[in-house]
Amino acid sequence: MFILSSPSGTGKTTIARRILTEDGEIRLSVSYTTRPQRPGEVEGRDYYFVEPREFNRKVEAGEFLEWAEVFGHLYGTPKAEIKAGLKSGQDYLFDIDWQGTQQLYQRMEVDVVRVFLLPPSIDELERRLSSRGTDSADVVAARMSRARSEISHWDGYDYVVVNDDIDACFAKVTGILHSERMRRARQTGLVDFVRELMR
Amino acid sequence: MFILSSPSGTGKTTIARRILTEDGEIRLSVSYTTRPQRPGEVEGRDYYFVEPREFNRKVEAGEFLEWAEVFGHLYGTPKAEIKAGLKSGQDYLFDIDWQGTQQLYQRMEVDVVRVFLLPPSIDELERRLSSRGTDSADVVAARMSRARSEISHWDGYDYVVVNDDIDACFAKVTGILHSERMRRARQTGLVDFVRELMR
Repeated sequence: MFILSSPSGTGKTTIARRILTEDGEIRLSVSYTTRPQRPGEVEGRDYYFVEPREFNRKVEAGEFLEWAEVFGHLYGTPKAEIKAGLKSGQDYLFDIDWQGTQQLYQRMEVDVVRVFLLPPSIDELERRLSSRGTDSADVVAARMSRARSEISHWDGYDYVVVNDDIDACFAKVTGILHSERMRRARQTGLVDFVRELMR
Repeated sequence: MFILSSPSGTGKTTIARRILTEDGEIRLSVSYTTRPQRPGEVEGRDYYFVEPREFNRKVEAGEFLEWAEVFGHLYGTPKAEIKAGLKSGQDYLFDIDWQGTQQLYQRMEVDVVRVFLLPPSIDELERRLSSRGTDSADVVAARMSRARSEISHWDGYDYVVVNDDIDACFAKVTGILHSERMRRARQTGLVDFVRELMR
């Protein structure tokens, strides 16, 4: 599981989308949610849509690797599916915040690589968070406060990448992804390959 | 410390030389040796040349991270110098075998990344080990036996890279090097950078 976190305004979503487009071996996991299905959304592709009662039963039964409430709706990552996928060699990308990362990591049931993106400077972050121009000073100040709070959890990650250039940042993040795939313990098939070499 | 090991004939020396040439931030450590100084070798650049008595005193005093005897001469990696260098952010490349790697790793006093190169197939390895053409079957068989023995220690490494193409292999190994540099714990200056972001 490849986790990408950052304060908003740091380009995380852009990087995540580009990884999903350009890397054929990684995909997003399909989450469960209590949010109503929107037009165009496909059950089992975009989300698994469930009633709150069913969602809570899954929480109680420990069927989620992590779950969170966002704007009154519940979202959860299914444990069994991810574990089976990882076991068969499937990589998953997660675009989640530090709390979700901590939930995932503390259970220690899955193989996780955690990457945190930082803005190049606080001025640049403020510029990005107020770039729409129409936001009031209060709204921007609230966003900056949330961003600072997220940044304060930078030390719960394996890797830290400063995004001062989106192409360079993308290259660094995919470099980490490719490198982590070369870890001995993650290379399924290596035992057989070495056995063949030693014959 | 970036350790590169492989059975001979797998291109390790070529890869190591290219890393030293193209990466400005990594260098070889200067070893102590009891081997006589050769013409052109410079004390303190190529080796520190010492008498066996002085070398053994250093072994007894625990001044080496690892040491080995090769063809009757002693070679040792100085602990204090490497630890000071690593602390100041200097990266070191080590082209050593599995025994040296184990010595370095077991002491756990230094920050180590271990990479093992494998040949693409046993036939290709045999081809490379006998490529000089003038070697007897016995000599080649002895080399193959040593290579198999080295390969059997593949599981003592963090990363495994199959060298089926020297350029691709070089790209993979430097990818690991660059990626490992982005580990949070290795980025000196990150604490100050984040403190500045949070002001």
